[in-house]
Amino acid sequence: MKCTICRGQAALEIRRHNAAFCAPHFLEFFERQVERAVRDQKMFTHENRVLVAVSGGKDSLALWDVLLRLNYRATGLYIHLGIGAYSEESRAKSVAFAQSRGADLIVVDLPQEHGMNVEELARNSGRVSCSACGLSKRYIFNKVAVDQGFDVVATGHNLDDEAAVLMGNLLHWQVEYLVRQAPVLPSTHPRMVRKVKPLYRIAEREAAAYAVLRGIDYIVEECPNSLGARSLLYKEALNMLEAQSPGTKQSLYWGFLEHMRPRLAAVQEGVTLRDCLHCGQPTTGEVCAFCKMTERAAARMRARLVRAQPASSGPPPEETVAAGVPAGDAVDPAAIAGEPIGLPSGPDDRA
Amino acid sequence: MKCTICRGQAALEIRRHNAAFCAPHFLEFFERQVERAVRDQKMFTHENRVLVAVSGGKDSLALWDVLLRLNYRATGLYIHLGIGAYSEESRAKSVAFAQSRGADLIVVDLPQEHGMNVEELARNSGRVSCSACGLSKRYIFNKVAVDQGFDVVATGHNLDDEAAVLMGNLLHWQVEYLVRQAPVLPSTHPRMVRKVKPLYRIAEREAAAYAVLRGIDYIVEECPNSLGARSLLYKEALNMLEAQSPGTKQSLYWGFLEHMRPRLAAVQEGVTLRDCLHCGQPTTGEVCAFCKMTERAAARMRARLVRAQPASSGPPPEETVAAGVPAGDAVDPAAIAGEPIGLPSGPDDRA
Repeated sequence: MKCTICRGQAALEIRRHNAAFCAPHFLEFFERQVERAVRDQKMFTHENRVLVAVSGGKDSLALWDVLLRLNYRATGLYIHLGIGAYSEESRAKSVAFAQSRGADLIVVDLPQEHGMNVEELARNSGRVSCSACGLSKRYIFNKVAVDQGFDVVATGHNLDDEAAVLMGNLLHWQVEYLVRQAPVLPSTHPRMVRKVKPLYRIAEREAAAYAVLRGIDYIVEECPNSLGARSLLYKEALNMLEAQSPGTKQSLYWGFLEHMRPRLAAVQEGVTLRDCLHCGQPTTGEVCAFCKMTERAAARMRARLVRAQPASSGPPPEETVAAGVPAGDAVDPAAIAGEPIGLPSGPDDRA
Repeated sequence: MKCTICRGQAALEIRRHNAAFCAPHFLEFFERQVERAVRDQKMFTHENRVLVAVSGGKDSLALWDVLLRLNYRATGLYIHLGIGAYSEESRAKSVAFAQSRGADLIVVDLPQEHGMNVEELARNSGRVSCSACGLSKRYIFNKVAVDQGFDVVATGHNLDDEAAVLMGNLLHWQVEYLVRQAPVLPSTHPRMVRKVKPLYRIAEREAAAYAVLRGIDYIVEECPNSLGARSLLYKEALNMLEAQSPGTKQSLYWGFLEHMRPRLAAVQEGVTLRDCLHCGQPTTGEVCAFCKMTERAAARMRARLVRAQPASSGPPPEETVAAGVPAGDAVDPAAIAGEPIGLPSGPDDRA
């Protein structure tokens, strides 16, 4: 197989483009695709400050890398979720990448700031892990961006991610999620920054190839909580269809943007954002979903601590104490609750 | 596994309904589902004359059977397409079923009436087989219904068929086909009868189970031309998703009808049907697609016959003569062309 550009030995075939590239021309192709996405969709300019949501995986590190190479003002944001060894390793990879590129990385530590890791937050608030995680990430991305004056949050969602989420939303016709699925979600409130997906033209294996060819050391494992997730099933189905008919994922997602999204525009009309009574972040209700989740979790944890520590007995048994909460301390719900977000939580939750 | 109704031994589990049935209660369930489809969607009444498109397969024979049991005025229409042994066997099954039920069956013989079987028609008109076949069937179903005073054409498309076609149309966002996908396509012209799909609530395996339990002798083989068809690939993908999450096909199709179709309604506004200049059937263009196809095929076949029979030589070599056309005869294109239909040909072509 020969490179479409130079006729040298190709390193990667891209069937949906009916093309193949050697390593240098693939890297060029990749950068051009990202630049085109940014420009065509008016995601941001070279003057804008871009906050890149970094998970330590191939997509987000490839995105950050290519934005830096294209001379965008890209700062990383890593959220430490406290998912055991997975989180430790992904943080280490993110920090190492930032250092190797001399780039700024903001780290938010969920257990440290909210007294619970994401699994405890989920359990104590009655949510499934991926829902609590997605809600937390969306909230924190937005809050950090607003507080620190970024113009836009960029996430590493690739074509495979978008097509799989879309497939799920179409299979169950979740119209309120379909409305929110786009490469650019414009700001609808002064404290709600624009969200963009500059890799929406890039397939998953292309992001992996880019990361490998650029020598990026990324975490290969998927989040342990994502095992058995619906999105993986949708990816499997789409991979089967793509293998038989290259371009299927692209035609699904791009066709949706062209033919379906304009017809959904009216759905969001009349949605008014107001300030969350507890944290002031924009929300559709009185109290935002993040406040509700963290407050509920804090209350439940406090009740457990009280049960475990009756009258003036000794410190509570180790296993009832949530990670990050000093044993025996009373937990101030306000300190835990902190900050919320108001939009409905979608399945579109990856950083 | 026990029957949900009588707690006897269940013969069939229906996971999307969270139910299981013994044979008698399954047959009852099946009839109820069909009756509900007919009634809820206002497909037809007991006064209407229903033309059932019969292929000899499980779906169309099950449909015909259940409509007769429910005392609808259901006449069968079998189109002999001339696809070798497959067509011979499917005709035999259809005729035998009609005889066993004392029901009326109309048989239209494509090679006899149009001088070519469906594969020759496809080859000579530059269409793929399934496209020529679908167009011919839609044309003939409608023409026979109009000419013989039927109120409605009913086809045996089941939930799996509809979900697979929908999946294909969504993957490639074929909006003009999406508009036409519904359990009921109302008549939009005095010579265009209503088309209905009373099995749209029934899964493929349920139609097969019904046919087996009722002792219907149907043709098990799929049409040989359908091997490798896209629709089978979509069915495979949907089966994978359904296995993991029962109800997926139903939620895909029903959700589409609820959430998407109303948004597409405007697409067909402004489409004007007029009379085909050649055959008078309703069409969107000047000459309908069926006329164009049959005339083009006839012209090409005539040209071949002329080439094979120069000046006053003997009869043409056997292999250049299309089946059904008497060797050496001049072919009158008007006799072949006959009758057309105007709507765009969709992937939704099964009888």
